[in-house]
Amino acid sequence: MKKVEVITQVLNANDLIAEENQAILHNHGVLAVNLMASPGAGKTSLILQTAKSLAGRVRFGVIEGDVASRIDADKVASLDIPVIQINTGGECHLDALTVQKALKGLPLNDINILVIENVGNPICPVEFQLGEKVRVVVASVPEGDDKPYKYPGIFSAVDAVVLNKIDLAPYVDFRLDAMRQGIRTMNPKAEIFELSCRTGDGLSAWAEWLESRWRRQKE
Amino acid sequence: MKKVEVITQVLNANDLIAEENQAILHNHGVLAVNLMASPGAGKTSLILQTAKSLAGRVRFGVIEGDVASRIDADKVASLDIPVIQINTGGECHLDALTVQKALKGLPLNDINILVIENVGNPICPVEFQLGEKVRVVVASVPEGDDKPYKYPGIFSAVDAVVLNKIDLAPYVDFRLDAMRQGIRTMNPKAEIFELSCRTGDGLSAWAEWLESRWRRQKE
Repeated sequence: MKKVEVITQVLNANDLIAEENQAILHNHGVLAVNLMASPGAGKTSLILQTAKSLAGRVRFGVIEGDVASRIDADKVASLDIPVIQINTGGECHLDALTVQKALKGLPLNDINILVIENVGNPICPVEFQLGEKVRVVVASVPEGDDKPYKYPGIFSAVDAVVLNKIDLAPYVDFRLDAMRQGIRTMNPKAEIFELSCRTGDGLSAWAEWLESRWRRQKE
Repeated sequence: MKKVEVITQVLNANDLIAEENQAILHNHGVLAVNLMASPGAGKTSLILQTAKSLAGRVRFGVIEGDVASRIDADKVASLDIPVIQINTGGECHLDALTVQKALKGLPLNDINILVIENVGNPICPVEFQLGEKVRVVVASVPEGDDKPYKYPGIFSAVDAVVLNKIDLAPYVDFRLDAMRQGIRTMNPKAEIFELSCRTGDGLSAWAEWLESRWRRQKE
């Protein structure tokens, strides 16, 4: 009987380009963070507050992903942070090829941490590696404490969960213990940061962790 | 020269099945509503409060769409409303075929308004007709007032926008005028209902509109 050759597809096209992105970023000493969330969880606010918190210690760059508009990029640019806006025009997630194009427009030698803010969507972005080293999901208190069970894909795929808008807890039905339990069930190893971008509470622990991830990469 | 026959693809497979669903629903006098939103905007709360508000006037049925879990269906069932939970297992939207399967499990003769709660995602569900007559997006105050510009597809595709959680407006940065302007820019004809499922403020105007849409269909 003739021997049949079987070729296993190890990487798809997106993953191959994501590996290229990772090499580009590594060569420039840049730590890339894929920041994912539902719409309105506070991804852009987290970027702005984190950059302020680490000013003088860490130089940030940002890629903003949105279906449409340049609202977020304008906010980031107002802090003199290098930023490129990607408009997907209907696509529900960023992909590695589009991020690679954006990388060519950024001053990578001047950036320590590159935050890639993905399209607001808790499902589709998870499937697409972009070249990042760190994956983070932002959840927010008004969304409710059942989200880890409803969106297990994203909660199990990340290195850290940022629970934003804790200042709104007194005004909504939200059980912090249930949320923690849900995250732990989906992802026992994830770091959990509870904070408010509005008041600044809890922000420093998150910022220090992110800075430590960058410093660890440099060593 | 030989004549070349050109066939235009008028409807894709999903649209064809959606037309079948529409016929099934019409034959039973059921008004179907495709309820879309970002995660945590309050779709399920809106269903529960609307059903309570119209108790004795309108008989509801519900199809719950989630990536995972039966949390929402259990809440609906606790009000003795016929409900079927669809778990998409990773898919980011409902489709007409899955809804058709669910229709077979519902007592359509006993239902006036069928609410199909789509997967929490403001992008992908818009592309998939399910057989509905009415399309509604739920937005919520904590998500921010820029969402119509960031997700033009969903805001331009609906008959009504429900702006939920108006009770949280004093505690967040939210400009109601900017939100209304954004909705109007994307969709001049959409009905806009500002309400709070938590306090009940504004709920009756929405419920009356929905009931009127069902009564108009019956005539």
